[in-house]
Amino acid sequence: MSETHLPEGALTLAKERLRHLVAQPSVAADGRAIPETAEAVATLLREEGFEAELHATPGAPVVFAQHRVEGAPTLLLYNHYDVQPEDPVDAWTSPPFELTERDGAWYGRGAADDKGELVSRLTALRLYRERHGDLPFGVTFLVEGEEEIGSPPLPDYVEQHAERLAADGCIWEFGGVDAYDRPVTYSGMKGIVTFELHARTAGRDLHSSYGAVADDAGYRLAAAIATLRDADGRVTVEGFVDGVETPNAQDVALVDALPDEDDELARTFEIPRWLQDRKGTDWARALYFEPTLNVNGIHVGYGGEGAKTVLPAHGVAKLDVRLVPDQDPDHVLTAVRRHLDAHGFGDVEIVPLQHAERAARSNMTDPFVQHAIAALEETYDQAPVVLPNSAGSGPIHPFVVGLGVSVVGMGCGYPGSRIHGPNEHVRIHDFERGTLATLRFLERLAGEWGETA
Amino acid sequence: MSETHLPEGALTLAKERLRHLVAQPSVAADGRAIPETAEAVATLLREEGFEAELHATPGAPVVFAQHRVEGAPTLLLYNHYDVQPEDPVDAWTSPPFELTERDGAWYGRGAADDKGELVSRLTALRLYRERHGDLPFGVTFLVEGEEEIGSPPLPDYVEQHAERLAADGCIWEFGGVDAYDRPVTYSGMKGIVTFELHARTAGRDLHSSYGAVADDAGYRLAAAIATLRDADGRVTVEGFVDGVETPNAQDVALVDALPDEDDELARTFEIPRWLQDRKGTDWARALYFEPTLNVNGIHVGYGGEGAKTVLPAHGVAKLDVRLVPDQDPDHVLTAVRRHLDAHGFGDVEIVPLQHAERAARSNMTDPFVQHAIAALEETYDQAPVVLPNSAGSGPIHPFVVGLGVSVVGMGCGYPGSRIHGPNEHVRIHDFERGTLATLRFLERLAGEWGETA
Repeated sequence: MSETHLPEGALTLAKERLRHLVAQPSVAADGRAIPETAEAVATLLREEGFEAELHATPGAPVVFAQHRVEGAPTLLLYNHYDVQPEDPVDAWTSPPFELTERDGAWYGRGAADDKGELVSRLTALRLYRERHGDLPFGVTFLVEGEEEIGSPPLPDYVEQHAERLAADGCIWEFGGVDAYDRPVTYSGMKGIVTFELHARTAGRDLHSSYGAVADDAGYRLAAAIATLRDADGRVTVEGFVDGVETPNAQDVALVDALPDEDDELARTFEIPRWLQDRKGTDWARALYFEPTLNVNGIHVGYGGEGAKTVLPAHGVAKLDVRLVPDQDPDHVLTAVRRHLDAHGFGDVEIVPLQHAERAARSNMTDPFVQHAIAALEETYDQAPVVLPNSAGSGPIHPFVVGLGVSVVGMGCGYPGSRIHGPNEHVRIHDFERGTLATLRFLERLAGEWGETA
Repeated sequence: MSETHLPEGALTLAKERLRHLVAQPSVAADGRAIPETAEAVATLLREEGFEAELHATPGAPVVFAQHRVEGAPTLLLYNHYDVQPEDPVDAWTSPPFELTERDGAWYGRGAADDKGELVSRLTALRLYRERHGDLPFGVTFLVEGEEEIGSPPLPDYVEQHAERLAADGCIWEFGGVDAYDRPVTYSGMKGIVTFELHARTAGRDLHSSYGAVADDAGYRLAAAIATLRDADGRVTVEGFVDGVETPNAQDVALVDALPDEDDELARTFEIPRWLQDRKGTDWARALYFEPTLNVNGIHVGYGGEGAKTVLPAHGVAKLDVRLVPDQDPDHVLTAVRRHLDAHGFGDVEIVPLQHAERAARSNMTDPFVQHAIAALEETYDQAPVVLPNSAGSGPIHPFVVGLGVSVVGMGCGYPGSRIHGPNEHVRIHDFERGTLATLRFLERLAGEWGETA
């Protein structure tokens, strides 16, 4: 049986560090506490012996920290210090920006995504040094502050700093276990493009008696949204998947080999039925390989108590599209525009939101990836679930395609972590195992890369 | 040229009374300040010599005030002291519950609907007494406090108090001028039924990466709403108009005789096009004779700044249906339920909101109605616009059908009054002319009914 717990001192320090970071309401969407949190992260990295710099960008500063080892390879770690908005705040059991331990878990916005992951990595590095001395290879941290709004400055930042960021492998922001507590890793991400739809039917809200002759923005917006996909989630926008190639046989085989988790997740999420009643391999291929079009929110007219007989003049919906490799975000927005025009919704305006991200997948045969898989197996005493790409999205394209580096995910989440929702949390035993897996990965890389130093 | 201004003292007193009533945030939807406002109305009525009583109901108290004249007919006046919610409060130029005079108008929630109308009537009664002495007929005021949420207790209240409410004619809550400043009267109302639609797709909000396999409540709700009508506002719910008869030839002739106001209103409301591009008589027949299905609001998921990649688990829409005579509200809700089931939305829940109201029209040949028309013509020096029914709804059915009394609308609004919206107001010259028209109506009724005393 492998080690399952962290030394008490390491766990205590990790919790204090996470409490400190969670207390910062670093919501990228509204820019709260961003510079303060960047400073707090730089301080933590300096405590671990790194030279940390804050690099200004057109948006939030990037925390760049590096410790090179002359002649040896370098490991790049990507994390972010920003978080999703905390609303609906009433649905939280404890305050979102106050780390709270209960039922064996740490609750708080960012406790899992992604402050908990960052603290876990610092803990693993410290444990490595305590047990083995200095690492025989270099380490670079890139901790950005706008991941939750699409990392607008990151592609340019990575391109401009390509030389200093050059690395031989990259640990991506998150990882953990699946619904059956099996370790999970992945080497790619979907992309994302987000936008608003605006319907305007009059210069002002009207008394709803005019509804016999005047349109309302609520119906108009609903009707436009309803045309974009069908009840089974199939996107009906012509040209939506232009240029997309089917995933390669190796990647399909990895997804087909995944253990089924649709039943367990349906229970966890209280979902009566999956779209298209998908199950098993069908379900998994959809989750990992299909693009999506989601409605994140609709807000039109009256939403208070009781009734209000108003004909709303303006309504807004927020949508996201999860992109697959080779799907171009600009082309997708153009296709949605053409679709709305063709369906009689030329008046419904598209307003792009955050910076779009393109999807990318690493080459799964890279030894770096294989060491990650082995480290997980040795830590969790079972073969990990290996994904060619996560179902989530992130700014992976500048790394995989721009820097040409292979990426693996490793960390301490689980599907019930409620990232992006109320009561986000990390289970303490996941934090411990995820940290130990990262430590094991460092040990394996030291074995492989130490030779070259 | 007829009298166009009120004596200065009467106008000053009216403004002070209206200021006092508008200061009460008597929003029926959330029950604020309801008892206080009922008391304030009773006090005003007592100041005008009425014996005023507050009658408890299962909801807000009804202010009942009466002055009978032995052996003479009685005029019933129906008003309400409750108002619509003030949101969006940011869109108000001056505070909603603070009467503010600017540009020749009085602004404030209820300044037009319906506190301004009530004060106007008190002013007309006072002027009558000053000029002619006591009225030779009885007067009853029924001022309720839940009109804006469908007057739930009113049908029972009217039935229980039918003897004390017996009258020979009723002035309905509002009136005024149309978009061309022509006086308007009406003798019926549409009915209304309001409800919520709830879509639930999971036990909790999910990360939107699950959108490839899991439904979202935003799309689900939009798709359900989109099936209920077409882009031209035609309701597509089977059975929606069951039992409805076409209006009689006399009522159609009245609507066909109406002056066109579609162009003027399109400009006032900044509406690019009317549903079905209707114009003139077509437009008017739709407005007055067709039932509607309106979306008053939709609220699902994230609505803050920027993007949030959430898959919302629950969404709610608020809808109202404007009913025409012979359309049964329960039957309509049943038809919507059947429609949703038949279109694959058996999971979308219908939650009825406020008490439904049935539509009704008076007999336009009643001499009471004809005196109202004549009073308007004499006050405004032009023939009034005469409607068999308003496009709005109200609890008229218990009066017209229950008490068997003819109803006429008379008052001081105009189509730009923004009732139910931000910056509701009454133009002072409309207030003066509407009050003088009511005075003239009282004088005509004194002529007709005084004989019988």
